[in-house]
Formats: sequence, C-alpha cells, structure tokens
Amino acid sequence: MKIGVFGTGVVGQTIAEKLDSLGHEVMLGTRDVKASMARVDKDGFGRPPVKDWLAAHPKVKLATFAKAASHGLMLVNATSGAGAMDALKMAGEPDLAGKTMLDISNPLDFSKGFPPSLSVCNTDSLGEQLQRAHPKLKVVKGLNTLTANLMVAPRTLPDTHHIFLCGNDAGAKSEVQGLLASFGWKNEEMIDLGDITNARGTEQVLPLWVRLFGTLKSGMFNFKVVRAEQGA
Amino acid sequence: MKIGVFGTGVVGQTIAEKLDSLGHEVMLGTRDVKASMARVDKDGFGRPPVKDWLAAHPKVKLATFAKAASHGLMLVNATSGAGAMDALKMAGEPDLAGKTMLDISNPLDFSKGFPPSLSVCNTDSLGEQLQRAHPKLKVVKGLNTLTANLMVAPRTLPDTHHIFLCGNDAGAKSEVQGLLASFGWKNEEMIDLGDITNARGTEQVLPLWVRLFGTLKSGMFNFKVVRAEQGA
Repeated sequence: MKIGVFGTGVVGQTIAEKLDSLGHEVMLGTRDVKASMARVDKDGFGRPPVKDWLAAHPKVKLATFAKAASHGLMLVNATSGAGAMDALKMAGEPDLAGKTMLDISNPLDFSKGFPPSLSVCNTDSLGEQLQRAHPKLKVVKGLNTLTANLMVAPRTLPDTHHIFLCGNDAGAKSEVQGLLASFGWKNEEMIDLGDITNARGTEQVLPLWVRLFGTLKSGMFNFKVVRAEQGA
Repeated sequence: MKIGVFGTGVVGQTIAEKLDSLGHEVMLGTRDVKASMARVDKDGFGRPPVKDWLAAHPKVKLATFAKAASHGLMLVNATSGAGAMDALKMAGEPDLAGKTMLDISNPLDFSKGFPPSLSVCNTDSLGEQLQRAHPKLKVVKGLNTLTANLMVAPRTLPDTHHIFLCGNDAGAKSEVQGLLASFGWKNEEMIDLGDITNARGTEQVLPLWVRLFGTLKSGMFNFKVVRAEQGA
C-alpha cells in the first residue's frame, strides 16, 4: 500500500523502515526537504541523519508533507507533538480528507528540561486537536505509549503487553489494527478505548513513561494490563 | 502499630480492614464523626455506611482527623482528592510532623461526569501540594493507580504487577514498602520513582485507568511493566 509518514525523526524512520520491509511504498513527509537533506549529525537517539538513512533505504522517498499526504492511501503522523498541527496544516485538507491517519505524536514540552511536561492534557488532547482541525481525516491515536523499536517489534518483549487505540471511525481503527497486526501485535494486545477523546488517557501516560525511562535506564518496556481471572 | 487512616470511603475502609486483620491498632479519621455515623446508605461502591462497617470491625475506632493523626505512628491518606488538603489541615501540623504518610488520594474531578478529569496535573500534583503544605510530614505517594481490593490483595491477580512509589524521604519509603510487603506486595513489584514530583506521573495514570475501567467493565486490573530481557 502507498503510505505517507509525517516526520523524519526516530519514530518516522523506525515506522518507515518497518513499512518498507513489509513491501509498502513509503514516502516520508517533512517541512523542508532541502533542510532535512542538509543535516549531517545523528539525532538525540543516535539515529543517522535522514540523508544517510535514505541512502540505506533506497525505496523510501522524502518529500514535503503535502506530497507525502497526496501519496499515501493511509497516513502515519510521527512528528513531534510541537510540530504535529503545523505538519497537518501543510499537508492540506484535500489530501487528508477521507484518509485514515495513525497518530503516534505526543504533546511533550521539553522547554523546562527532563522530564517533560505536556503542552495539552486533561480536558483536551493533541489527538482531539488534530481531529477537530481536520474533521474529514480519520484520526486513530495509537502506539504513542511505547518506544519506537517496540512499536514495530512487539515480540521483542518476553510477555504479552498492550497498546491503546482510540478514534471516532470504526473502519479506520480496523485498518490500523490490520497494519499493526502485520508488525506482530496480537489482536488481544490492541485495546480499543472508544472515541478520540480517550487520547486524553493515553497521552497522559507519557509523564509516567518518561519517569520509568529515567528509573529503569531503558525505554525497552511497555505496560501489560493484568486482569483478574474470570470469577475472581 | 498504631495507624491513622484518613477517609471513611471505600479506600479507607478497605485499607483499615486489612490493617486491622494484620493486628494493627487502626483509627479512621473523618471530618465530622456525628455526620459520618448518621449515614445509613451504602456508598457508590456498594460499601456499607461507616456505622455498620464499624460494628463489623469493632477494634477499629472512628474519630476526627486530628485524633486519628495523633493516634497514628504512621498515617494513610485515603480521602478523596477534593478532600485531601482540608483533611490534613484539620489533622494539624503538630500531629503530622515527623510522621510517614502513605498518600493514596487522586485529584479526580467528577464535576463534569464520567470519565473524570484531574483538578491538578502536569506541572504539579496533589502529592506535591500535600508535601508543600506540610513540609515536616513525610509524604509517600503510592497505591493510587489501582482499585482498593487489589491494593490489599495483590496476589488476586494471576501475574506479577506493579505499583509506583515516590517521596522525598528514603526512610519513609522503606517504611511504606515494609507495610505493603505485609499486604502481599513483592519487593520487585514496588517501583521507586524518586522524589515526590514523580506523583505527576502516577496521578496522571488515572485518566487511562478510568477509561480502561469503562472498557473492561471491571476495576480488577493493574499495570505490569514488561521489560526486555537482558541484552535484548
């Protein structure tokens, strides 16, 4: 399938690499292609600059947000939280309307250092903001509660673990579930919380996530919802 | 040990019952003893009115917050989030100073219905507010991320699962860990996140918790932090 992935950072690269390996036609979207291609340093996660990464993944294309949106029959938002609203605005309504978008972004505010706070939370969420700004886009919030390497390789962990999906369109959620199943997620590991307002719940997990990252000295963990057995 | 438990609701009753069963001398603290004893209806969780509950637990005493604070060599705050600051104010500084208090309360705001939002979050937390208001009290935030029945009976769940502790005083955290171990918590299930500012992380889990409660139609679940195996 033709898939547009917004964002060239660690999440965008990791998702694009996985989609490419599964045979999808992937186009990465960025604000300024020339500026992205001019970068020469690794990012804060040790990922290579996008120019080197593209050389190693020759089937993946880099283009503007607008072109990536136009290319994709399905979209993935892997921008930073701070860049998400602008990225979708630059993508443009005509190329977003009617499409399913998996939104992985989190509204993290690092302006006061680590751990970050949230730039929107509690009575609103970034997922809702994106949905409100683009009512014809089918936003499915998901994968935003774990590190990129585990998003695309859930079986790396030695146990069942869970992700949380939400969005207003049942068909779009099914489409995302299908894609994530191809990443290795089991159906029972993808918990559908309901409409997009539930992004308030999943985005607000990040403040615990970043603290566990600090305590465990690793991002290679995820949450499992352990339930009482029937009748307990 | 003499323990003062603030709050007569489902959390206070459940904690007090467990402490009583373990042989501790428990005093429940409430705002207005006469008003508490006058209640005749079950609460929203189906718990009996405190008068009936006390009749069934004759060793547990009911008194004012001030008397419960004076009684306890260790304290537990099991009030609602909305009532926590007032409860501690009524308890009074002299009887709080130097003591360890396990703070289970969450700043849930049900004024707009279910699911609740938070009355404080992100750049502050209720745990921090209580600690700032009573600098000589040793606040340990914990047990606030799961339902009362599981707080006191963690082995009800068929798997390892985790709770998150934080607070500024290492000795107080050890004291709480010792108490929780007597409830059945394994040492490796109690993750120490650091100082009390980490309550921002654990209190902000509640918006996901309440949504999972809605989705799973049960509160009998908890989070397990699943980690990659060494070298993964």
